[in-house]
Amino acid sequence: MMDSTPPTLSLDYETDAPDAKPELRLWLRLLTCTTLIEGEVRARLRRHFGVTLPQFDLMAQLDKAPDGLSMGELSRRMMVTNGNVTGIAERLAADGLVTRAPGATDRRTQVVKLTPAGRRRFRTMAQVHEGWIADLLGDLDHAEVAALMDGLGHAKQSVRAHRERSAEP
Amino acid sequence: MMDSTPPTLSLDYETDAPDAKPELRLWLRLLTCTTLIEGEVRARLRRHFGVTLPQFDLMAQLDKAPDGLSMGELSRRMMVTNGNVTGIAERLAADGLVTRAPGATDRRTQVVKLTPAGRRRFRTMAQVHEGWIADLLGDLDHAEVAALMDGLGHAKQSVRAHRERSAEP
Repeated sequence: MMDSTPPTLSLDYETDAPDAKPELRLWLRLLTCTTLIEGEVRARLRRHFGVTLPQFDLMAQLDKAPDGLSMGELSRRMMVTNGNVTGIAERLAADGLVTRAPGATDRRTQVVKLTPAGRRRFRTMAQVHEGWIADLLGDLDHAEVAALMDGLGHAKQSVRAHRERSAEP
Repeated sequence: MMDSTPPTLSLDYETDAPDAKPELRLWLRLLTCTTLIEGEVRARLRRHFGVTLPQFDLMAQLDKAPDGLSMGELSRRMMVTNGNVTGIAERLAADGLVTRAPGATDRRTQVVKLTPAGRRRFRTMAQVHEGWIADLLGDLDHAEVAALMDGLGHAKQSVRAHRERSAEP
């Protein structure tokens, strides 16, 4: 989810290899859908609110954590490195949207929290963002959305069950 | 698709907000599935072949282009910046897997091509990768895979139809 300033949104990962396994075709279609939506959301966040997708994602994590989150926890939840999280938080702090303070239990950690202005700003963006997604996926009817939720729910379980590494913490 | 060395694979973007729109829930589930599979593929590529996901993606693009691709075209297809593509290609060139040469028509552009060794290496990895995906999604039966292909195909069309920017080139 890093910001790489994609030059276009026309990409399509899908293969035209006629002998590709159905699961590979499914994965490439999944990746194409995700990349298309993510690219569109990234562009709209920048255009409408002047924020990057990583900034929005970081604020979304903090909105769910009223007591704030450590840099390490943010890094874990956002699947990006500590260095990246620090940079994103610095920028949001400069805009008065988050604060950073030493942790109560471990003063070597930095805890990041939304300011009241940051929370208001995030909630405005989140509501508009929800409308964008409803709009982008608006050609699907209720039954299609429900069927995709079920199918992807099973896919998620399958991936979790077949990972090489040890179980989740 | 940049390499951000995710510290864990346990993330889940799904919301527990009971009043979230169904389309938002679907998008977050789609994002969770994609991130889980991508994280697992990234880890396995590194562990089994010592390559990064961006290196694998770049070789995949070149494998489909026997005459090679310019840095700009690679950047467009991979949705990453020119600078990133240059760095990835440099590393692959150092390993003897790609060559870089001035373009035939425009000598200011650099054209990147797989070497025969690079092509053999990519095809070995691609075959193993295809098996990984079949394994990760292995709990879905044929009908579920087909239903997801249809639903995601419609989702893809919907997103393309509702984008803000002008049509694809």
